[in-house]
Amino acid sequence: MKAEIIAVGTELLLGQIVNTNAQFLSKELAAIGIDVYFQTVVGDNALRMKQSIETAQSRADIIIFSGGIGPTQDDITKDVVAELLGRELHIEQRSLDKIEQMFTSRGTLMTENNKRQATLIEGATPLTNETGLALGNAIFQDDHYYIILPGPPKELKPMFSNHAVPWLQQHALTGEMPIYSKMLKFAGIGESMLEDKLKDLISAQTDPTIAPYAGEGEVTVRISTKAGSESEAMVKLNELEVQIQQRLPEHLYASHDIPIEHVIVEMMADRELTLGAAESCTGGLLMELLTSIPGSGTMLRGGIVCYTNEMKEKLLNVPHAYLEGEDAPGAVSPEVAKVLAEQVRMITDADYGLAVTGVAGPGYSERKKVGLVYIGIAERGGETEIHELNLSGNRETIRIRSAKTLLYRLWRKLVENEKLD
Amino acid sequence: MKAEIIAVGTELLLGQIVNTNAQFLSKELAAIGIDVYFQTVVGDNALRMKQSIETAQSRADIIIFSGGIGPTQDDITKDVVAELLGRELHIEQRSLDKIEQMFTSRGTLMTENNKRQATLIEGATPLTNETGLALGNAIFQDDHYYIILPGPPKELKPMFSNHAVPWLQQHALTGEMPIYSKMLKFAGIGESMLEDKLKDLISAQTDPTIAPYAGEGEVTVRISTKAGSESEAMVKLNELEVQIQQRLPEHLYASHDIPIEHVIVEMMADRELTLGAAESCTGGLLMELLTSIPGSGTMLRGGIVCYTNEMKEKLLNVPHAYLEGEDAPGAVSPEVAKVLAEQVRMITDADYGLAVTGVAGPGYSERKKVGLVYIGIAERGGETEIHELNLSGNRETIRIRSAKTLLYRLWRKLVENEKLD
Repeated sequence: MKAEIIAVGTELLLGQIVNTNAQFLSKELAAIGIDVYFQTVVGDNALRMKQSIETAQSRADIIIFSGGIGPTQDDITKDVVAELLGRELHIEQRSLDKIEQMFTSRGTLMTENNKRQATLIEGATPLTNETGLALGNAIFQDDHYYIILPGPPKELKPMFSNHAVPWLQQHALTGEMPIYSKMLKFAGIGESMLEDKLKDLISAQTDPTIAPYAGEGEVTVRISTKAGSESEAMVKLNELEVQIQQRLPEHLYASHDIPIEHVIVEMMADRELTLGAAESCTGGLLMELLTSIPGSGTMLRGGIVCYTNEMKEKLLNVPHAYLEGEDAPGAVSPEVAKVLAEQVRMITDADYGLAVTGVAGPGYSERKKVGLVYIGIAERGGETEIHELNLSGNRETIRIRSAKTLLYRLWRKLVENEKLD
Repeated sequence: MKAEIIAVGTELLLGQIVNTNAQFLSKELAAIGIDVYFQTVVGDNALRMKQSIETAQSRADIIIFSGGIGPTQDDITKDVVAELLGRELHIEQRSLDKIEQMFTSRGTLMTENNKRQATLIEGATPLTNETGLALGNAIFQDDHYYIILPGPPKELKPMFSNHAVPWLQQHALTGEMPIYSKMLKFAGIGESMLEDKLKDLISAQTDPTIAPYAGEGEVTVRISTKAGSESEAMVKLNELEVQIQQRLPEHLYASHDIPIEHVIVEMMADRELTLGAAESCTGGLLMELLTSIPGSGTMLRGGIVCYTNEMKEKLLNVPHAYLEGEDAPGAVSPEVAKVLAEQVRMITDADYGLAVTGVAGPGYSERKKVGLVYIGIAERGGETEIHELNLSGNRETIRIRSAKTLLYRLWRKLVENEKLD
């Protein structure tokens, strides 16, 4: 089964809103084994909408519309589909009652145009709108399934999941094998290096399939298979996961789609470990990533952003001789990274102390090149580890990669320590 | 001139990422007077990509591609376009040098597949990638303009604005009356309130046109006009800007598209003012916003993330009696916000001290409701100001709105102080 999503709305073509509906629908369709081959966006224009539908009819079995079913004059999706299918539009009484009731309860007068929201194409199944007024429609004609949904995501999502999916399963998906997938998450490795390590598996792929996606400081690999049951799928997926894991044991940090900071917060909270951080070039980004995860409050004790040398001295006890003078290693040095990590661990009385100091650029150097970054991890009762990074990219990229690499190193350390326990 | 945007990438069809590029490109194209009639998304599949291009050729003058020009085997956009146009693909030497240089500087080996990123369709204009490796292409053939851009937004945006737009203006838009626009930036006010204040101007608009866009913690209004020359356009735009400014004098913080933290960094650097920050619920986000601006190193002296009560006491001298006990105001209180702001100002020896403490949720309360936030601004030799915020939304929204509101209040204070000088 192939599907095409047609999002209707001039506001999308003007770039006023982002088409998050297409993402939601694509993800949900993939989950029930329907392949989306095309997504289209078209304005509130009958002629161009017709062209889009005709194109979709030539290449998809299922056509899903989002938007253009509200009360205003430019909401014409149902009218255009009805005309193309040679059917009439009727008012669905229950839906109209609901709209009238809503206006009565608000104490306002229902304007005539609101009736448009209750229309149903002759012969279509009404799709209930649990969170709004515009009625959805589902209809089958000439080997094609049509689903018409409202534009606002908070109305589209429940209508699709609770009403359109059951309709599709009953009418379009009888006898098909569903798709199951798993997301593998990698850190500390780039997309091209990862692909290189999995090259033969990727080339040979038939079932399950393997698809890598680059992110900022992490890589995601989706492995998918069609199977008769979830347990049958999991056997195939787990077998492949083990093969991949064996090739990249130091980089695979999760088997579902979460960022590395989430894994760290969970690992540390589970083991009641705590963390403090001292950030120079990342300026708060590292702590921001960690605190974006609910529950991080128990493990992140606190931290210091020490952007200037003076603050490094005053708040983190970095010796003046490290920072200034002819032979000083300077703020961007392994020596300073080490002091920052150890001091912040002690100041916050945490189990681990993290530090970043580097040149994120532009326009600052200490005779050091943009992209040179030192990261450090201090550990209660352990050795402090320091890594030198040579990153490329702009200020934003260097900052995010510094933070993500430090998180990757911390994750490695936590894994190693867990083994020792 | 009609344009169609073709976003390439199976990850879009699987719903793994949202097509924000289509929004960005549509908005920018509208700004230079190019109408987008269709947006299409197609997977990394040569046959279906060809179909999409042929459809686009039948209905658009300008075809803009995003994605599918990276190093991996499924990055085939340039190959498909080259084949359709009957042209060869070459390696562009300067681009290849840059890629090789990057790998050398990182000390890693360049894998063969990375060369693909340097390809240029025979006869095309190379579009420089300022923030990544994959080279863009622009080419004209048989009445159609083709622009090929990378998928990652941080690479696509500068390439489009700095290289593709000038190319389009030179080749495709000759003889058309250009559109000039100005972006007005507002903080401390929501989109609907702002629209309400400008309602009559928006309804009456013919030329210039007024279009508001909501952002996170800020609102942008784009005013645009077609004109024979830039100076003619500026007269019209400035006149409207003055009208808008008179209605919202306390909210309009810039006449071009920059975030409020950028304005603050510039104002403070100009006047040699310095800043320190103490963050509880925002966990580093406030400092992260400020330090994302190049040049912030001179004004942000440093700061402290004091997530736990213990750290508030230890690092920021918040009295124990404020934090614990039957009658304690608690960590989320105006009293604590005041101490945090004043202490961090003193500790960092800065002109201003900023503080945020609040409940970002979920799952933490101190018997206070999620969304309750106190922000404070301490000033050398001045009164400390405290504001209570009652924010709605999820953890992320509450955090960003807290930080943005504090920046807005700081901007107001800087403006007021400037008047006094």
